[in-house]
Amino acid sequence: MRIAVLGVGLIGGSIGLAARAKLDAEVMGFDPDSQLLDRAVDLGAIDSGSESVAAAIEGAELVFCAAPVTALPSVAAEALDAATEDCAVTDVGSVKRDVIAALGGENRFVGGHPLAGAETSGVENARADLFEGARWYLTPTEKTGGLLYDRVQRAVAEIGARPQAIEAETHDRLMATVSHLPHVVANVLVNQAATALSEEAERFPEVGPSFRDATRVAGANPAIWGDIFAGNREAVASEIDALGARLREAAELLRSGDRAEVTAWHERAGRRRRDLIETEIAGGPLHELRVRVPNRPGIVAELALALGRGGVNIEDMALYPAADMTSGAISIYVAGDEEAARAEDLVRELGHDASRAE
Amino acid sequence: MRIAVLGVGLIGGSIGLAARAKLDAEVMGFDPDSQLLDRAVDLGAIDSGSESVAAAIEGAELVFCAAPVTALPSVAAEALDAATEDCAVTDVGSVKRDVIAALGGENRFVGGHPLAGAETSGVENARADLFEGARWYLTPTEKTGGLLYDRVQRAVAEIGARPQAIEAETHDRLMATVSHLPHVVANVLVNQAATALSEEAERFPEVGPSFRDATRVAGANPAIWGDIFAGNREAVASEIDALGARLREAAELLRSGDRAEVTAWHERAGRRRRDLIETEIAGGPLHELRVRVPNRPGIVAELALALGRGGVNIEDMALYPAADMTSGAISIYVAGDEEAARAEDLVRELGHDASRAE
Repeated sequence: MRIAVLGVGLIGGSIGLAARAKLDAEVMGFDPDSQLLDRAVDLGAIDSGSESVAAAIEGAELVFCAAPVTALPSVAAEALDAATEDCAVTDVGSVKRDVIAALGGENRFVGGHPLAGAETSGVENARADLFEGARWYLTPTEKTGGLLYDRVQRAVAEIGARPQAIEAETHDRLMATVSHLPHVVANVLVNQAATALSEEAERFPEVGPSFRDATRVAGANPAIWGDIFAGNREAVASEIDALGARLREAAELLRSGDRAEVTAWHERAGRRRRDLIETEIAGGPLHELRVRVPNRPGIVAELALALGRGGVNIEDMALYPAADMTSGAISIYVAGDEEAARAEDLVRELGHDASRAE
Repeated sequence: MRIAVLGVGLIGGSIGLAARAKLDAEVMGFDPDSQLLDRAVDLGAIDSGSESVAAAIEGAELVFCAAPVTALPSVAAEALDAATEDCAVTDVGSVKRDVIAALGGENRFVGGHPLAGAETSGVENARADLFEGARWYLTPTEKTGGLLYDRVQRAVAEIGARPQAIEAETHDRLMATVSHLPHVVANVLVNQAATALSEEAERFPEVGPSFRDATRVAGANPAIWGDIFAGNREAVASEIDALGARLREAAELLRSGDRAEVTAWHERAGRRRRDLIETEIAGGPLHELRVRVPNRPGIVAELALALGRGGVNIEDMALYPAADMTSGAISIYVAGDEEAARAEDLVRELGHDASRAE
């Protein structure tokens, strides 16, 4: 099987590595940056680099467009122009509506979006197992050819991902909810706090752990996020509208002074979050273990090492340093009832106070 | 000096321990739960327990009211009734306007709020150094007696905290901005995602790290947060209103499709967050180090141990597991340019990829 990869960054490079290793495919690559193309060959991400999209695609049965989001519609159109009638073309953009609007009428195009690789970039970080176990959304339309769709989804599954069909609009709305909206909220919370700081510079409180966590992604990776906010602007804006309505309800609820209702609303959010987070974790219900510790170099290591030795995997972790940085608390998130109990024992054996957060 | 502590939980108990150790004070305690009072004596948090507020206060020069927020106005009023003309009464509630409205006309009362101890509760967790280096807000009014205010702020400073005077309204508004509002936002984001999940159960995406971080405090500690939302409802609701206005602006900006403006807005938020976070960290500018790692037991330990050995303190940490839980990235936050460079070297020596996030 011959495959073409257009754009050899982290995602394109990883597709190449995986396709060569797992599909035993011959992988042709194209990238406007010819140095990157050479690098991809050196790293074994592609068999060889081509000088044009058309040259890369020649003889290919399957084409992955892995260019930046904004370039995808034109790259995919160029690929479709050059490809034969029996060649499937897919992409890896994190927003799907625009590219489908541009190409959805084309029976050879299948939109795609792997949920992987957000944490790094560059072909140097590419690896064959990047998509292992990862959700990979595919957005076929009524025009999409059945055999071609099947070829895309089979290839995606064979390189280790879990393909799932979804409408482009639904995809963009769901991504807006769980990913793009929290980024907007982080930015807006920061701006609001910055205004308060500028008014009350002398007496502005140290920002607490809740603010730190809520705003961690503020301003993250401007190049990528500029594209996402542009590409998914309708869905993100309408999620913002919906959040605005919910916030107005929350303000009304607080102003009502109805303690029982406020507490019920608050507790419900806690339960729902646990449900949402648990949908993504395989090992069972998620437990939060709070440990009070001195804040000295090595303390995180001591804890993590003890848990590691005991075979307990840490799913997530949050540090809450006290104001003077000499002490604080660490929350350790562990999946599974048994693992959580074991983690608690291990932490206590080290002489630290540990309690299960509700 | 004789001090009374009304309410011997984490905060009251820690005040007692600190006052005995650092002010060489005799500390009388009262708590409606007499078992708790015995426990506090056993732990050395108070010299002895009294059967009533009046008995505890007898002969005291300074009274700390450390009851739950909702009980504070009545506890403080009872204390003022029993106290002599020369006795200062203060409290430790995280919301100040209500108690000042109730007692601000009283020259012996000084509202207070130490920013410490949020991560645990109970007298068992009390310790003498809980307030070491912590901001401790005091909200005097025009009626407050100068000598009595000075006694409160001196005691607070002597037990290791950093007292700062602030108007009650300003205090409540700032706390709403940096702490209460992020809690509301976490709840609301969860509710919005839960609705999307209920509509699209089959195809709901695994929630990403941005969602996890933004909603970490959703539903946290309902007993305490019910009180805070009730006690500070006006300020929190008006912060929600302001956030709503900012969100509408953000939606408008996104809908405009003005890429340059969107990117500028996004980058500005990133810079501002760094400024805000750095105001609370002593060791210099905060750096984020991204490390790509296999997600196996012990990996966090390996990293943290190497940094600890190298004398690098980890200010904060975030884990980004990949979908299959076999690999992922860890963000390590380190304060100070030199420490960050050292951390980077140490991580690389372990054979992991590390990059500085912008």
